[in-house]
Amino acid sequence: MTTTATTLKGQPLDRQTLDAMLRRRLFFTPAFEIYGGVAGLFDYGPPGCALQANIVETWRKHFILEEDMLEIDTTVLTPHEVLKTSGHVDKFADWMCKDPKNGDILRADHFVEDVLEARLKGDKEARGQKVEEEDDPKKKKKRKTKAEAVKLEDAVVQEYEEILAKIDNYNGEELGELIKKYDLRNPNTGLQPSPPVAFNLMFQTAIGPSSNLPGYLRPETAQGQFLNFAKLLDFNMQQMPFASASIGKSYRNEISPRAGLLRVREFLMAEIEHFVDPEGGKKHVRFPEVNTVELTLLDRHTQLAGKTEVKKMTIGDAVSNKVVDNETLGYFLARIHLFLQKIGVDMTKVRFRQHMENEMAHYAADCWDAELLTSSGWIECVGCADRSAYDLSVHAKKTGAPLVVRERLDEPLIFEEWQVEIDKKKFGPQFKKDGKTVEAALEGTTQEQREKLAKQLTDNGELELEVAGVGSGTVKVSKDLVKIEFRKRVENTREFTPNVIEPSFGIGRILYSLIEHVYWNRATEDGAGDEARGVLSFPPTVAPTKVLIVPLSANKQFQPFVSKISQKLRKYGISARVDSSSATIGKRYSRNDELGTPLGITIDFQTVQDSTITLRDRDSTKQVRADEDTIIAAIQSLVTGAKEWKDVAAELPTFESQEVDVTVR
Amino acid sequence: MTTTATTLKGQPLDRQTLDAMLRRRLFFTPAFEIYGGVAGLFDYGPPGCALQANIVETWRKHFILEEDMLEIDTTVLTPHEVLKTSGHVDKFADWMCKDPKNGDILRADHFVEDVLEARLKGDKEARGQKVEEEDDPKKKKKRKTKAEAVKLEDAVVQEYEEILAKIDNYNGEELGELIKKYDLRNPNTGLQPSPPVAFNLMFQTAIGPSSNLPGYLRPETAQGQFLNFAKLLDFNMQQMPFASASIGKSYRNEISPRAGLLRVREFLMAEIEHFVDPEGGKKHVRFPEVNTVELTLLDRHTQLAGKTEVKKMTIGDAVSNKVVDNETLGYFLARIHLFLQKIGVDMTKVRFRQHMENEMAHYAADCWDAELLTSSGWIECVGCADRSAYDLSVHAKKTGAPLVVRERLDEPLIFEEWQVEIDKKKFGPQFKKDGKTVEAALEGTTQEQREKLAKQLTDNGELELEVAGVGSGTVKVSKDLVKIEFRKRVENTREFTPNVIEPSFGIGRILYSLIEHVYWNRATEDGAGDEARGVLSFPPTVAPTKVLIVPLSANKQFQPFVSKISQKLRKYGISARVDSSSATIGKRYSRNDELGTPLGITIDFQTVQDSTITLRDRDSTKQVRADEDTIIAAIQSLVTGAKEWKDVAAELPTFESQEVDVTVR
Repeated sequence: MTTTATTLKGQPLDRQTLDAMLRRRLFFTPAFEIYGGVAGLFDYGPPGCALQANIVETWRKHFILEEDMLEIDTTVLTPHEVLKTSGHVDKFADWMCKDPKNGDILRADHFVEDVLEARLKGDKEARGQKVEEEDDPKKKKKRKTKAEAVKLEDAVVQEYEEILAKIDNYNGEELGELIKKYDLRNPNTGLQPSPPVAFNLMFQTAIGPSSNLPGYLRPETAQGQFLNFAKLLDFNMQQMPFASASIGKSYRNEISPRAGLLRVREFLMAEIEHFVDPEGGKKHVRFPEVNTVELTLLDRHTQLAGKTEVKKMTIGDAVSNKVVDNETLGYFLARIHLFLQKIGVDMTKVRFRQHMENEMAHYAADCWDAELLTSSGWIECVGCADRSAYDLSVHAKKTGAPLVVRERLDEPLIFEEWQVEIDKKKFGPQFKKDGKTVEAALEGTTQEQREKLAKQLTDNGELELEVAGVGSGTVKVSKDLVKIEFRKRVENTREFTPNVIEPSFGIGRILYSLIEHVYWNRATEDGAGDEARGVLSFPPTVAPTKVLIVPLSANKQFQPFVSKISQKLRKYGISARVDSSSATIGKRYSRNDELGTPLGITIDFQTVQDSTITLRDRDSTKQVRADEDTIIAAIQSLVTGAKEWKDVAAELPTFESQEVDVTVR
Repeated sequence: MTTTATTLKGQPLDRQTLDAMLRRRLFFTPAFEIYGGVAGLFDYGPPGCALQANIVETWRKHFILEEDMLEIDTTVLTPHEVLKTSGHVDKFADWMCKDPKNGDILRADHFVEDVLEARLKGDKEARGQKVEEEDDPKKKKKRKTKAEAVKLEDAVVQEYEEILAKIDNYNGEELGELIKKYDLRNPNTGLQPSPPVAFNLMFQTAIGPSSNLPGYLRPETAQGQFLNFAKLLDFNMQQMPFASASIGKSYRNEISPRAGLLRVREFLMAEIEHFVDPEGGKKHVRFPEVNTVELTLLDRHTQLAGKTEVKKMTIGDAVSNKVVDNETLGYFLARIHLFLQKIGVDMTKVRFRQHMENEMAHYAADCWDAELLTSSGWIECVGCADRSAYDLSVHAKKTGAPLVVRERLDEPLIFEEWQVEIDKKKFGPQFKKDGKTVEAALEGTTQEQREKLAKQLTDNGELELEVAGVGSGTVKVSKDLVKIEFRKRVENTREFTPNVIEPSFGIGRILYSLIEHVYWNRATEDGAGDEARGVLSFPPTVAPTKVLIVPLSANKQFQPFVSKISQKLRKYGISARVDSSSATIGKRYSRNDELGTPLGITIDFQTVQDSTITLRDRDSTKQVRADEDTIIAAIQSLVTGAKEWKDVAAELPTFESQEVDVTVR
């Protein structure tokens, strides 16, 4: 299986070879494999776990520490009512069909896609055209339906292609119609599946022993942040704008996950909720710092025209040209770009894609995804949405909690207006069950109406008001029940519901895409790529382990040096591993190339004589030699990112022998 | 509500005042509070979240980095079969009763305890004895049943007291008998609740759309580590012993949680599984490094004698006297002690309590809990168990996966023995459905039996064997179906299932206990504790924020200094917060005392003149003054733990004014 995807060095990327290497080195592994595994669940082994921790740590520094965000840790278990209010109970679903015979469960959109693609492929074969199975980088899955060489009418081919182009936009009913219209059949039984039904993607459970408190595993960390808004604002001493952030697991009960780490049922998210005043154009005070950062953008208009050409543009231009809606959103797009760059993502394989109008939630003002190009196509790794005031508003409405900001006005606002004042004690006994309705009608009157009603009260001692559904539809209210007067109202504070800009990171997807971006094969003498010699060129800051320590052989003289250097590195918090196995030096370095360990220290007979050690750079395989303290200082500067290898190589004497394979023991 | 618990300075600890402070400063807060909250679920606000992160980071360095453990991150979602095998489906339960009238759900042991304690209290009152409601530091909850002054017979008092002393040891049936025998009634209805039934404490859910894969939220991280054992051993290049470790959320669907952070439904755990050869006494190569660490031990024998007197003992002595079962277990007890010390736990409030025989799982060899004394009594914060080979064995048996170590023997072992060789092809047709039974009977024979059976084969051409349940109970097997010969067997490898030593940390419980241990009240001029001036004396290494930066006033001249110092601290990765609010300096420092911020920088008019700044120590409120770089270097050394305040105070000039409250603006 080959794809158009390439390695860091432009070699064709062989996904199977890479996957085998990642499993061999235990970056990740199917969970519960000895029990047969569970689709969509993966465990991270030591290098994957360390890589994840380093990405998260970089994220925490880049966003939380750098911007004084308020990090909180909220629960995964979430009661029904919260997710009912947020809309997830009703809308967080995929369409699913069932085979009437064997009970196969099919995700409707994937099923339609699969059958139509197979037919198109069969058509190509029948026409004698070249079929490149995996030519399409958008393909994220293996085809289930086998292509049969049957020629289709030209018009049908066009219909199929149009359907496939907008496959994400069909609802359940429409997918059901497609299945009927084109007689799409489950390849396993030859039968049409049942009409699609909505399957909610949240994992459900019951909280407590009585089963009367249904709950879910959260589908995002965002809701926990919104619910704490008032407390966070208080903690931030009422200062606006501010951002909260959460790093934690979220869950999505996928119908049939089948894309490795890219579509899983349990995943780590890092989410920021930046709360901003909706007035004043959502400016950001630090926008000038990122103004000139150049992004690769795929905007809505380009996509509407059916194209995928990207534009390179500074974020400053993008915001001033209104390609990106506002400064705050733009600021975060630039910060996301810088973060991806910092962890070693290949920036030629990154684009920011704007959501189409119909793709966004109805309340969203604008939304961009950072997509990374992998062997599975362009993968959404970070979403950055302007969620407007939606979430805070719905929770406030449901609970009555004041999820608002009260801002003291420098100059108080003075209103002169007709005010209605109801005597509630008398109102109830008079109107009984209609009391609330009449009250609401009075309070809903306009200034003009009030002026007239006030005159009625003065003139007649009562007013007449139309109130639909009460009595004859007209109600009389006497002046002992209500006052309507022209008064002055002074407002010293302004109250508003903040808007939310939400950068949301799928850490697992970023981690996997990064691995593909830094992967390459070491060229052997004859210049051909040697697939057995894979390398992961992580930047030292995110590499799972920073230093490999290898004694030349099992000779006992080397041991004290190994111990001493390990301890020193540990003291500086630099993760190192010792490989004193009997494999050749070359083999041991190869193993660590596959683990992405950027630096290697060799302890040899010269070390025993003069205490010098060599330091090897993973990417160039070049080595330098110096005394222990000098080398450790060099390692520190490389690991913190203060220096690059070329700086170290320029400063310290080169070492040239020893990369020969020496068989030891 | 007062308890016998004390603050860091020996003042009486007022739990309500502390709780109010923690909520005010948003260390943690009930989750979903605006929706009415859910018992047993808490969110960590910014200081709680940072404190948790720092404790976890210290843990990671102390254990994982220091010992080259293999950290892995496994899924929370776990299929039914795994937890069936581990025993959790059948045994991870509490006993629960239901009120027949109002449906109240009661945890049976808590209910019995509650009613009997109320009766004992009523008895004391009737006898005119002094009743100290909260005198018992073991009390972890509020009493539901009201005490009525009714005198009991002396014998009954004794019975009740004996029951309460062993309340943890009753099973459901026994609890039911107690309820009947003593006519225990639900205070809300005056009725006896239903007999106790087992309530499994795992949260259940369904994985995937078809509901035919039931799963649970894991109750511990351990199982994920056991299931990956073979891969981890491989990753570790077959080297033994080694340890894996996981930090992650676990879940426990408590019947009625009611002890704040000490009994919650969702919690962070950090667990180590140290795999060790069961032969050779479970020695640990680094035991000599901790040999002299002195622990406070409450052993099994002391508890059996009904006492709670602790013994101080070095771990070296404890292991050699067999108080602690083996070196590896002892090594980890000492390492746990050192970890607790490192994060600032008051070591006079720590004890290691050994589990009673009947308290441990049947397979456990030995088990100790690190308990921390809090206002809720002694709280189990860390468990350290020798789980023997139980987990690996049951999973291997269930799945057939070889969860074993194969060790090459230096000298091959040679066995001479009678071996049974069955011709399986012929066996089946001959014995049909009994084939397996007869095979098993043959293979289960002893050496002596085999010698006799071999003789029968030679002499008679067949053997006679008793096989219960097959035919008449005696089976004849002819020599073309089986051979029994005396042969030599050479073993070059030894195969064994490792034993597991498991230190298991409840991070939330440690975090809460630590807060109580470092809490105290600032004495005012008159020497009385001022409850409004709480202080949390976290060590700088775990404090949520390290430095508070306060400009003396809103004067704009101070702003450039604030920015420059913030940026410098950020560059060094030192978390700092600026408080430029209009509160007095004193108020701003008080706020940060409550947040546990160990250091404060003040920027005043002298700063504008000569660029010097002051550094304040939270605990002593002493200040020093020096230039910016000197102060930042001092902060670095304090935050990494390289220096203590007294070192800094000795090196830099003291600053004495300014702690006066200056009203600004």
